[in-house]
Amino acid sequence: MKKLIQEKTHFLQDVLDGLKITHPELDIVADTVVVRQSKKQSGVALVSGGGSGHEPAHAGFVAEGMLDAAVCGEVFTSPTPDKVLEAIKAVDNGDGVLLIVKNYAGDVMNFEMAQEMAEMEGIQVETVIVRDDIAIDAIDQRRGVAGTVLVHKYAGYLSESGTNLTDIKAKVEAFLEGVRSIGMALTPPAVPTTGQYGFDIEDTEMEIGIGIHGEKGLERTHVEPIQDIVTRLIDKLETEVDAKDLIVMVNGMGGTPLSELNIVTKYVSEVFEEKGKTVKRWFIGDYMTSLDMQGFSLTVAPFDQGVVEALNAPTTSHYFNN
Amino acid sequence: MKKLIQEKTHFLQDVLDGLKITHPELDIVADTVVVRQSKKQSGVALVSGGGSGHEPAHAGFVAEGMLDAAVCGEVFTSPTPDKVLEAIKAVDNGDGVLLIVKNYAGDVMNFEMAQEMAEMEGIQVETVIVRDDIAIDAIDQRRGVAGTVLVHKYAGYLSESGTNLTDIKAKVEAFLEGVRSIGMALTPPAVPTTGQYGFDIEDTEMEIGIGIHGEKGLERTHVEPIQDIVTRLIDKLETEVDAKDLIVMVNGMGGTPLSELNIVTKYVSEVFEEKGKTVKRWFIGDYMTSLDMQGFSLTVAPFDQGVVEALNAPTTSHYFNN
Repeated sequence: MKKLIQEKTHFLQDVLDGLKITHPELDIVADTVVVRQSKKQSGVALVSGGGSGHEPAHAGFVAEGMLDAAVCGEVFTSPTPDKVLEAIKAVDNGDGVLLIVKNYAGDVMNFEMAQEMAEMEGIQVETVIVRDDIAIDAIDQRRGVAGTVLVHKYAGYLSESGTNLTDIKAKVEAFLEGVRSIGMALTPPAVPTTGQYGFDIEDTEMEIGIGIHGEKGLERTHVEPIQDIVTRLIDKLETEVDAKDLIVMVNGMGGTPLSELNIVTKYVSEVFEEKGKTVKRWFIGDYMTSLDMQGFSLTVAPFDQGVVEALNAPTTSHYFNN
Repeated sequence: MKKLIQEKTHFLQDVLDGLKITHPELDIVADTVVVRQSKKQSGVALVSGGGSGHEPAHAGFVAEGMLDAAVCGEVFTSPTPDKVLEAIKAVDNGDGVLLIVKNYAGDVMNFEMAQEMAEMEGIQVETVIVRDDIAIDAIDQRRGVAGTVLVHKYAGYLSESGTNLTDIKAKVEAFLEGVRSIGMALTPPAVPTTGQYGFDIEDTEMEIGIGIHGEKGLERTHVEPIQDIVTRLIDKLETEVDAKDLIVMVNGMGGTPLSELNIVTKYVSEVFEEKGKTVKRWFIGDYMTSLDMQGFSLTVAPFDQGVVEALNAPTTSHYFNN
């Protein structure tokens, strides 16, 4: 496995050191918690995070208009409760803290423990759990994937608009009712810290319904032309999305060139059009990746004027609007 | 070879169709020329382009504050003179047109022919040739690579500030005197239109001094820790860069995850520091890629307050400021 790294045990630290060099507006506290250097003095503070390897998520979204802190675990590994607690304490300004957590057992458990500890210290904390990945049938077991980044932006806007903690949680949960994602991959992620690939796959095969930590998909089949791949994914999404007007994110998995994401976008647009649906707001780029995996995910949400205004509002994150 | 494409003969058209869907502020004329929908009514118009496969270059930089048009050839293939002429005619507003051309024989010849044809139609045209890649010794044979994107931004700022054609050309050429790049790769690009890889390479090897069209490097060696790789590249750059304060671009080659670009950045910063140099402005991300190649290039320019103001000025391109 070939990687642009110094030593596998330094991966996370080196990523964060590099991030800090090019983002002087960020600070790193407690070794692995990325916060804004200029702390928000009022308004609900937003904390997200999880394992690393999903760059720009989550640290790239610590910015005005989005997150206040990202807690960075080791590659594909949940951060510990003490780090989440450090993040909560670093960003709380008295208006309460919202934790935005992807639905993985370790993340949910560790963020919940941190919430309890913070509450014992008198900090008001609420949590939203993101479960947008429809590759898994049982809703309570669904993983949080790229839809999480839309939540960062939506909640960030609500916070900056002065919405209180209870209302942000309610609005985000209402939004999440309609958010659905599914992904595919041509190649597995190459995990620098273990030297292992997420899964084995032949040169003629693809995985449909992958996760973002090297989890295999729901099914493996021969690689097809992109229109057929997109049709497969949209057929699955369609069973859960009623809306005619949509917000759609085409998310690269880290090793997919922009040229191919543009091609994917063309066929996503065509296939939705054939089904009588219109994409009214697009997001294209690498938002929630899986190291260097080649592939993409589609995230769909019903078009809603208020949500789109929030998603369109300015942010200082360079990684959101591409 | 696994690719997210429909048919190899449709690659360019599908990329441009996808780009147009997500960038309604752009138009495509003469099939492969990307222009701003809202034509600039005064000021020097900037045209660049070349073969495709380098996304976001060049079409992603057609935006306020950067290019007026990008002429898109087939993958790794120069656009024809008639398309360049169409671009010139589409963007000229009477204040003249500057062609920004990477130094490849086909590009230089075809842009030059287009310039002559445009001049015969009474349009004032000048050309700057970018030769920033120090992998080749002879300066007149040096290729144009990621430094070209800095020229797009610098010239875009000068144009919007009302600088005339002669002065923009002179200022850009003075800037280019100091711009130097060199790249490396772990993997070759997989070319969708031919089904071929740019070069063959073992699982333990890397190439130093690669081009952006699958050209092999100056030398092939075992993969090293990133600090050693960065030291190799900076040692080569240092022989041609005197300045103590620098502008540095860490450019991903298309398949390199952001996490690894951040790691590269950390060591670039350290190695320059050891050499008594300070990076005062960073650019990190995918600017001038080679399809899905894994690797990166470093571009270095002397720090100059006027240039940095130009590079920092706003642009509506989502792809420049990451």
